Amino acid sequence: MKAIVITRPGPPDVLALRELPDPVPGPGELLVAVHATAVNRADLLQRRGLYPAPPGSPAEIPGLEFAGEVLGGALAGSGFSPGDRVMGILGGGGYAERLAVPAGQCLPVPERLSWAEAAAVPETFLTAFDALVLQAGLAPGETALITAAGSGVGTAAAQVAREAGARAIGTLRTAAKRERVATLDLGFAALLDAGAPDLAAQLAAAAGPRGVDVVLDLVGAASWPLALDALAPRGRIVAVGTMSGARIELDLGALMRRRATLVGTVLRSRPAAEKASLTRAFAGRMLPALAAGRLRAVVDRVLPLAEAAAAHALLEGNDTLGKVVLEVAGREGPRPGPATG
Amino acid sequence: MKAIVITRPGPPDVLALRELPDPVPGPGELLVAVHATAVNRADLLQRRGLYPAPPGSPAEIPGLEFAGEVLGGALAGSGFSPGDRVMGILGGGGYAERLAVPAGQCLPVPERLSWAEAAAVPETFLTAFDALVLQAGLAPGETALITAAGSGVGTAAAQVAREAGARAIGTLRTAAKRERVATLDLGFAALLDAGAPDLAAQLAAAAGPRGVDVVLDLVGAASWPLALDALAPRGRIVAVGTMSGARIELDLGALMRRRATLVGTVLRSRPAAEKASLTRAFAGRMLPALAAGRLRAVVDRVLPLAEAAAAHALLEGNDTLGKVVLEVAGREGPRPGPATG
Repeated sequence: MKAIVITRPGPPDVLALRELPDPVPGPGELLVAVHATAVNRADLLQRRGLYPAPPGSPAEIPGLEFAGEVLGGALAGSGFSPGDRVMGILGGGGYAERLAVPAGQCLPVPERLSWAEAAAVPETFLTAFDALVLQAGLAPGETALITAAGSGVGTAAAQVAREAGARAIGTLRTAAKRERVATLDLGFAALLDAGAPDLAAQLAAAAGPRGVDVVLDLVGAASWPLALDALAPRGRIVAVGTMSGARIELDLGALMRRRATLVGTVLRSRPAAEKASLTRAFAGRMLPALAAGRLRAVVDRVLPLAEAAAAHALLEGNDTLGKVVLEVAGREGPRPGPATG
Repeated sequence: MKAIVITRPGPPDVLALRELPDPVPGPGELLVAVHATAVNRADLLQRRGLYPAPPGSPAEIPGLEFAGEVLGGALAGSGFSPGDRVMGILGGGGYAERLAVPAGQCLPVPERLSWAEAAAVPETFLTAFDALVLQAGLAPGETALITAAGSGVGTAAAQVAREAGARAIGTLRTAAKRERVATLDLGFAALLDAGAPDLAAQLAAAAGPRGVDVVLDLVGAASWPLALDALAPRGRIVAVGTMSGARIELDLGALMRRRATLVGTVLRSRPAAEKASLTRAFAGRMLPALAAGRLRAVVDRVLPLAEAAAAHALLEGNDTLGKVVLEVAGREGPRPGPATG
């Protein structure tokens, strides 16, 4: 098979399309023909040599999510058959024509989603669902602040919050992106300028007197101390990204007075059993909304897998809105419909 | 009744014994004849004007816990009768001969406890139980790090951890105190010098390769970054005190890699319903161990209520080991036995 390989740590052009042996599915794993994958910020760090693949994942092929069709593997009891359209999260190996993935990490792809749309779903929506619903326990009537509202996870999080009966407030630095996000009807009750000098006051006005119940922080250092200052009593902050830096000054007294919780989370390094459990929870609570079109992945653009380097450069330029998807040559198409076994 | 009053913000000698009207129990409240109360660090802050009493509590009478006998009030359905020995946490008002307290915040005092011992139980044990068991979910076989191991909460926390089937490691700055704590058989598997230059290495050796699962931090700034560096994957840090300062530098990336949780907590400001729920949970899980003598409050010394100023000065001197208790004149005695209604 062909796959994108990190030939050495470095800038985007260290990514190269190579011929590699097909993966061999292990116990409980399915073999999948990849139609599309998508780029995540973790891939950029991995490419630069700063975030090695977790044990059990291909060391040199990046790619944390996929959409494709089942070819074979441990089908018995998996609920899947050859030809089924599936999508899911991975520890790595998504930038390839074929991959092996634990069956428990596979979700059926709803009929209405194209391959590119499906490939843009797993990391964004599972991250947002896990952070907001499972970890922060976002409840109906609560308010969630979502930083980096124009990122893949940000655009998914607003929709997950709406689906959970909660209200989302987004922050976003670029005016043009803010306007584009506003037109997408993702469920943001307010979209604020992350760089505004009076952001705290704007946020207080948008959140109401209690403050925000949950912060999904994709930004890191630049979100502080705002994230804590804006928090309601018993509020929860979930730290998912550190794009602007990871070191913050934290006032433990302010945390205690609010009886607040700060939780750090990553998906990539989780054991397969935990990924399967998250996948199941998402399938039960969110897949119907995805099938009905109430949740949809925001795709910035779609490139051929061979242009992974260009896709990385795009994400590093911070000018994308939603996901950058990579399609496998010969398997493209806006809406391929159910595949045949 | 007589009560200790904060006459103005300031040093210990602003505390004065005054004659005040008896409190009038409201709906759901019991009237209690106080036999003993105990001093908490929050009282010192309140005396200095830095931590005003929460709404609904006496503004000028400190005192967050008590042991005494039921005189009357909303007895119906409370499970208590006049003359019953009770103890519990308060929003304030404990430094007095009488107080009114929601019945749900009252615990029966086990037979074997003197009034002074009982008065030393509520804040320390409910704080430790809430932090370790309810908030951090300390599980059998896990390891808890307890900073300020010689404080009232620290000495209670080691015993609560043991009762929960977990292992406790304590840190403590003063060598003499460390030796005294070691002789008390509170359940510390290791007692380390909080000021040792190689504390991190000592802690790693004591905790084992996984690290500590839970940190109960009573110290604040001086516990960082150790508290996070020592943490096992999915570890939990509960911030309960900030004696050494509240501002820390936190590495969000380290928090994320461990998928760790940091939660800030206070008891004093919680609504009565939450205090009642905590009291119930403690009664179910820990009261039998207290009655059996497996849990016991460490009392540094007992002073008359009129000497509250001296008691505050003692606590401010940081040389106490366990609790400083205040006894009401005429109601002292090492083991008064059941009172008569």
